[in-house]
Amino acid sequence: MNNFVYDIPVKVYFGENQLGNLAPEILKFGKRVLLTYGGGSIKRSGLYDRVMAELKAADCTVFELSGIEPNPRITSVRKGVEMCKEHNIDVLLAVGGGSTIDATKFMAAGACVEHDAWEFFGANAKPIERALPIVTILTLSATGSEMDAGGVITNLETQDKLGRMAAPMLPKVSFLDPTLTYTVSPYQTACGAADMMSHILEVYFNLNDDLFMLDSMMEAMLKTIVKYAPIAIAEPENYEARANLMWCSSWAINGFINGGRRKAWSCHPMEHELSAIYDIAHGHGLAILTPRWMEYCLEESNAYRYVSLGVNVFGIDPKGEPMAIAKECIERMREFMSVTLNLPDSFTKVGIKREDFAVMARKACRYGAIRGFKTLEPEDVERIFEMCI
Amino acid sequence: MNNFVYDIPVKVYFGENQLGNLAPEILKFGKRVLLTYGGGSIKRSGLYDRVMAELKAADCTVFELSGIEPNPRITSVRKGVEMCKEHNIDVLLAVGGGSTIDATKFMAAGACVEHDAWEFFGANAKPIERALPIVTILTLSATGSEMDAGGVITNLETQDKLGRMAAPMLPKVSFLDPTLTYTVSPYQTACGAADMMSHILEVYFNLNDDLFMLDSMMEAMLKTIVKYAPIAIAEPENYEARANLMWCSSWAINGFINGGRRKAWSCHPMEHELSAIYDIAHGHGLAILTPRWMEYCLEESNAYRYVSLGVNVFGIDPKGEPMAIAKECIERMREFMSVTLNLPDSFTKVGIKREDFAVMARKACRYGAIRGFKTLEPEDVERIFEMCI
Repeated sequence: MNNFVYDIPVKVYFGENQLGNLAPEILKFGKRVLLTYGGGSIKRSGLYDRVMAELKAADCTVFELSGIEPNPRITSVRKGVEMCKEHNIDVLLAVGGGSTIDATKFMAAGACVEHDAWEFFGANAKPIERALPIVTILTLSATGSEMDAGGVITNLETQDKLGRMAAPMLPKVSFLDPTLTYTVSPYQTACGAADMMSHILEVYFNLNDDLFMLDSMMEAMLKTIVKYAPIAIAEPENYEARANLMWCSSWAINGFINGGRRKAWSCHPMEHELSAIYDIAHGHGLAILTPRWMEYCLEESNAYRYVSLGVNVFGIDPKGEPMAIAKECIERMREFMSVTLNLPDSFTKVGIKREDFAVMARKACRYGAIRGFKTLEPEDVERIFEMCI
Repeated sequence: MNNFVYDIPVKVYFGENQLGNLAPEILKFGKRVLLTYGGGSIKRSGLYDRVMAELKAADCTVFELSGIEPNPRITSVRKGVEMCKEHNIDVLLAVGGGSTIDATKFMAAGACVEHDAWEFFGANAKPIERALPIVTILTLSATGSEMDAGGVITNLETQDKLGRMAAPMLPKVSFLDPTLTYTVSPYQTACGAADMMSHILEVYFNLNDDLFMLDSMMEAMLKTIVKYAPIAIAEPENYEARANLMWCSSWAINGFINGGRRKAWSCHPMEHELSAIYDIAHGHGLAILTPRWMEYCLEESNAYRYVSLGVNVFGIDPKGEPMAIAKECIERMREFMSVTLNLPDSFTKVGIKREDFAVMARKACRYGAIRGFKTLEPEDVERIFEMCI
């Protein structure tokens, strides 16, 4: 078992009608606020007005940056950095899903340095030692950005989609109101479920099996997604389903489940290359890749991990040959992604073409082989892409 | 589902040989340290010397308060308060189990007020608005005090054993090294397991059943205790067992599992009255009470909760009548406490006498009936005590 440091000082207000706590939390950091959001759904839902009313009543000066894209772009980050510097921003308030929050993190970090924000990414990335304080109001359960220190940014010029983590970017306070996700479409709900499922599986399939407590807690979270994702898709205003998924999204990736285990995320770097080029929904790409990756990694020696997943999450009968149970587990995962979540299950169906496999595989391994549950060289990644056709 | 606020900013260094991080963390708060500990086992184990070496190398001035009792006394708290004030202490370093940490919390709070520390307890308790910073090094997996904001103090003069929580008493940093628990005796290991199991059950048996994710995570933690407590008892130096139990002890009570559920702790207030008078091990008292309390609360309408526990934690076959499974679950709990943990399972065996039942039952309900999974009036508590004879 490896040592680790646990340090997640994010304060979370969970539930309905918690926005009365927004202004007091914002004021801990100052009155000059940069409000960031996406395509304007928060205006249609009335959330924008509620937030502005709270901030205005507290005498805040609010600057706005809207239009942050899904798969957020470095160009948006740059705009935000500029506004922070120009307006002497004290605190950033991100209202939206993972894309808005991710972009906001790098604005907050970029505001504290002189160099361009894209230099935070890549092999010779600049350090992130400081960031302006960030508060979030979450409107989509998926990426977990509301409770973690990371984010992923796309550079369309270079066709790169790169992630970065740094403790100073951890949100100070996050507001998680399940009713704000009532308007999330069935498709986006499904993509969110696939994304958080993948966050857990990236850790669950690790190379140290000695933190049973965390393994069992991950199974508990996976069971939660399997139980509630279909309910949230069928009944978008089911509070219990939305609440369980929302809290699960945060814990899937806030670092708690890691417990120092030796692992490397595998499906995420592969998927980032898909959506860097094709701009498809991240969760959908993961839904296609995950069962194939599981199949590619399966060996007699690691089948017990699949057995545990199959038995404890999908309720497969534990009596039987480990390899048979493992294969059934993969089949159940594929079925969950494609049938239950209704996410079309091949690259062909979403327009991803074989001609890009080689370059995407090479970029997925840009820092060397992916040394996770199974080591993946570019040729392994290409083979997994092949299985997704 | 009820709203809640999640806010657990304790930093944890988990694993072996992390003490190199002690001095840098202490120095964030200052150089004048009050070191608190219990009966001196940390001197025999060499931990005392290691801690002192780190602090001295960092040029800290260390004052010491040793001899903190199991079921710590208000008299020890008063001594600590006095020392904090007299020596202008910057930070308290508690090295020990829950008793030492609990007592240290109230020293840290008491140092910031003029009144006597016992006034923090009882029906007209004084507020706890500030506390000196606390760092802990845990040597016993049980109470979870290393990651929560509460503590329990005994006043032998008044025969009271009272708990209190307050955010300022939350430790800033805790060091969790599983090897420090290698020397914990089988009996104390068993008591610790019973204690953390009870912390989870006090929440698991709640009056809102809509946070499935947390229910499942509690089952994961209970499974962890069922799996590893017997291993730690049989093989005291089994790192995996000690580590799983240690991390479980923190998460059993740090507030995460609550999720706003309506509940009231039931076995704990009953047990506190036993150990207030008899000074028995807290975990042992809980081990005797818990299965009887479960039996007393069981009804057709709540049997499903026992079924979930029995099936998911004790592996009972889910096919069968709910009431039958529920009763088997209670039997399995009793067996776990008395046979697996080897904790003698009656009041008679530990010397608790019927003549004290009435007064202990009344005191357990000092703030009114215990309105938990089943409402307990003093006469209910007496009946549960009767079942323990």
